[in-house]
Amino acid sequence: MKAITVSESTDTDDKAQVIYGDVESPELKDGEVLVKVHAAGVNRADLLQSQGNYPVPPGASEVLGLECAGVIEDPGNTGRETGEEVACLLSGGGYGEYVAVPEGQLMPIPEGFSLTEAASIVEVACTVWSNIGMLAGLKEGQTFLIHGGAGGIGTFAIQMGKALGATVAVTAGSAEKLQTCKELGADILINYKDEDFAERLKNQCDVILDIIGAKYLNQNLKALAKDGHMVTIGLQGGRKGELNMGLMLAKRLNLSATALRGRDLADKANIVSSTIEHIWPMLADGRISHHIDRTLPLSEAAQALQLLEDSAVTGKIVLEVAD
Amino acid sequence: MKAITVSESTDTDDKAQVIYGDVESPELKDGEVLVKVHAAGVNRADLLQSQGNYPVPPGASEVLGLECAGVIEDPGNTGRETGEEVACLLSGGGYGEYVAVPEGQLMPIPEGFSLTEAASIVEVACTVWSNIGMLAGLKEGQTFLIHGGAGGIGTFAIQMGKALGATVAVTAGSAEKLQTCKELGADILINYKDEDFAERLKNQCDVILDIIGAKYLNQNLKALAKDGHMVTIGLQGGRKGELNMGLMLAKRLNLSATALRGRDLADKANIVSSTIEHIWPMLADGRISHHIDRTLPLSEAAQALQLLEDSAVTGKIVLEVAD
Repeated sequence: MKAITVSESTDTDDKAQVIYGDVESPELKDGEVLVKVHAAGVNRADLLQSQGNYPVPPGASEVLGLECAGVIEDPGNTGRETGEEVACLLSGGGYGEYVAVPEGQLMPIPEGFSLTEAASIVEVACTVWSNIGMLAGLKEGQTFLIHGGAGGIGTFAIQMGKALGATVAVTAGSAEKLQTCKELGADILINYKDEDFAERLKNQCDVILDIIGAKYLNQNLKALAKDGHMVTIGLQGGRKGELNMGLMLAKRLNLSATALRGRDLADKANIVSSTIEHIWPMLADGRISHHIDRTLPLSEAAQALQLLEDSAVTGKIVLEVAD
Repeated sequence: MKAITVSESTDTDDKAQVIYGDVESPELKDGEVLVKVHAAGVNRADLLQSQGNYPVPPGASEVLGLECAGVIEDPGNTGRETGEEVACLLSGGGYGEYVAVPEGQLMPIPEGFSLTEAASIVEVACTVWSNIGMLAGLKEGQTFLIHGGAGGIGTFAIQMGKALGATVAVTAGSAEKLQTCKELGADILINYKDEDFAERLKNQCDVILDIIGAKYLNQNLKALAKDGHMVTIGLQGGRKGELNMGLMLAKRLNLSATALRGRDLADKANIVSSTIEHIWPMLADGRISHHIDRTLPLSEAAQALQLLEDSAVTGKIVLEVAD
């Protein structure tokens, strides 16, 4: 089958070594179904993996891609129906014509969504809900700070935060991006180039969704309210920073860092099931809308990743796999 | 009434400025009862407060003391009975003949406990249960690391960990202290002077109860297992340390820091109620035994605090307040 993999050798050239070519079709393990992929969402983790900065978990496909939607081609021993349309949370393999998926990671297509739309909502929905809903327990009336509000994670998180009844604060790097955040419902807009978000939001944030890491560690601690919880899911601003544990203790703070991909099957099934329960209704009735920046054919995956690297997109990029 | 307070002026002498003298008896607020104190437990936070290193929360008594047991002298408007024996979680005021206590912070005397024993179990029980049971959710089969296993917090935490079915690891600074830990049920004994606990327990600890802070931050992160949770309740080893957020993300770690004293009434009532439900039965049937190192009269509070500062005790010190 046709698929996208990453070259093992590191070139002196800094560019991603992304290869469009033929690979073996996946074989089913116990409890898996074979899905004929219609479309696959493009994520920052794919970009990191293509650059050799995101180690593939043991047993995961060598093919890129953490989410897709398509049709069940072979239900294996799961009792599912051939021909059922599904969205899939993957530990790899979405950028290919076929992918093997553990049954616990299958989701229905959200009401009113195309397969292409569904393919690119799975990872963000599971990531944001598992961290902000399940782990940090964001509640009505709380203040929720989102860094990078105009990105794929941010645009989803703003709408989910508003749907849960929170006051939503965002940081972004341009007036245009902040306008996007505002249109999605964000209440407090901060251009990080002009203003110190920690000064503006000092002791106010009950929950922070952090994609920056070390660079913002001190500021995030300052912005957190008593009993606040920061969940870090990305380290775009570095890995090591000085932690003021005295401030943590004085405000009873909680810091978590998570990644979805390395979780075991039971964890993933639990997250998928809770996401369907809590988020799918918000997609069906429009409380969360989904913005696709553009679609590209599978063969142009390298260009899709380059666009992500250049921060040249607002919303998601989707690869169309089937004709 | 007679009570222990702390002088406001800081002397050039490094000793605690602890004063035994006469103060006004407390006045009841709405929802409080007046307790005639029989005995009061001595805690490290009292020592820190006596040294000016633990700011008193707004509205708290100027009298030292975070726990006591005694008899209800005036039930105020709570509907409680005069003469009822109670143990009390306090935000201050235990080192005095009378103390005003919000009703939600009253606990029954554990079955088989004297008032003196009950007076010194409240703070440790509420602290350890709220952090390890309620927050970190320690479960059967998990590995639980306790720093300072032979202290008041440690001796309680070892037994609670065993009662919950965990494997308990402890660090302490002498063979004698480790022997105490072993007798209480600890499974893994580490003398931190001889051995690097992080090397011994690398990636194994599901829950860590930390009283050290910055000095152990890196080692604790190394010792934590995937999805591990460290709860910091003391900073004996400093406040600021370098945090490796990359390691946090790779292992999906959770760090919390908490203190009981500054929590609001609703939080405290919730913790007290859960502690009675989960811990009082363990005290009644002996799964958790309580060791009092010694009792001293209220007038000798300064000496009691000095003993704590000198690490000259194993288990708790109690001040006898009533004749």
